[in-house]
Amino acid sequence: MKKTQFSKPLLERVPLYLKYLYSIKDNEKRVSSTAISQALKLGEVQVRKDLNVISGSGKPKIGYEIQSLICNLEDFLGKTKRVKVALVGAGKLGKALYGYAGFEEYGVEICAAFDLLVEKTQAFRDEKLIYPIGAFSDYVRENNVMIGIIAVPEQSAQATADMMVKSGIKAIWNFAPGKINVPQEVTLRSENMAASLALLASEFKG
Amino acid sequence: MKKTQFSKPLLERVPLYLKYLYSIKDNEKRVSSTAISQALKLGEVQVRKDLNVISGSGKPKIGYEIQSLICNLEDFLGKTKRVKVALVGAGKLGKALYGYAGFEEYGVEICAAFDLLVEKTQAFRDEKLIYPIGAFSDYVRENNVMIGIIAVPEQSAQATADMMVKSGIKAIWNFAPGKINVPQEVTLRSENMAASLALLASEFKG
Repeated sequence: MKKTQFSKPLLERVPLYLKYLYSIKDNEKRVSSTAISQALKLGEVQVRKDLNVISGSGKPKIGYEIQSLICNLEDFLGKTKRVKVALVGAGKLGKALYGYAGFEEYGVEICAAFDLLVEKTQAFRDEKLIYPIGAFSDYVRENNVMIGIIAVPEQSAQATADMMVKSGIKAIWNFAPGKINVPQEVTLRSENMAASLALLASEFKG
Repeated sequence: MKKTQFSKPLLERVPLYLKYLYSIKDNEKRVSSTAISQALKLGEVQVRKDLNVISGSGKPKIGYEIQSLICNLEDFLGKTKRVKVALVGAGKLGKALYGYAGFEEYGVEICAAFDLLVEKTQAFRDEKLIYPIGAFSDYVRENNVMIGIIAVPEQSAQATADMMVKSGIKAIWNFAPGKINVPQEVTLRSENMAASLALLASEFKG
């Protein structure tokens, strides 16, 4: 997979564009950047720039063809669609992430969760399952899972990361407090919730 | 409260410095930036720069006085200590945040949680409580709560934000998917979990 060339803010706007475009009545064939920017309260220059990256430029005075714009936006999110994600640690945070409703509109999904305290595979909403931790490596290899999410307590985080790396995980999204180490070829993103809150506390306009 | 002049990466390193300094034996009085940088696997220039911001520079060949360095680092985190934080939405994510162990070392704490489905105040671990949502405004006013965390489903997020603003909350940390609007004088930080995962999926070195 090639390195991304788009920014997170752009990625965050794609579902907004789609939501608006889906809402346009079926008999409309085209939409202008002005209409989009007004509906979403975004700058028109911003909208044109975003859509240019994703779909090419609209035609002057004609605008964008709605159906082809929708296809291109969906394709754009689809870039990440085939990347499989597994989660380790099905406590409160793990379950919150596993059941998080917001992933779908970005074309990502956590396909399996694993927990040390689970002895027999358990159901978790609809078709999702929580597996015993011992099943992790085989699952990852058989299903070509690329991303691992760590939602275990701090003291188990490094061991979990090591297990993920050994199983062939390519990127880790870590929610445990504290520092973990991974080999250079593995991407590590750590969500330091506490630092985020502390920074917000120090930053807000009082 | 004045606008912050430090970065999140610096803020994230402060607990690491403290943890290392606490671990040094009592009979040691001083520590060098070399020792700190080796123990924490950080660049020495980085360490000197960080400590200079927080505590002033160490003395050449003598280093830093451990006790005064600890005091200064603790003070630095203490900047955020008196800011009170309340959470709305005590579902899985809300409870995970409410019970998150990592906040303490950054000197921040969520002091109360509120939920629509709670009719009578409930205990939540140790001394923490979950209150009925109706108690939110009074609690915020009486306790001078500055920060509100939104951990409700997407469809209730805007109403929750409005209630927070009306109650006098100055900064909002939003975990609900989708977009919410707040007046300009209120700081809004949204954690778009899905976009984070989608970005990681598109970014990792494959």
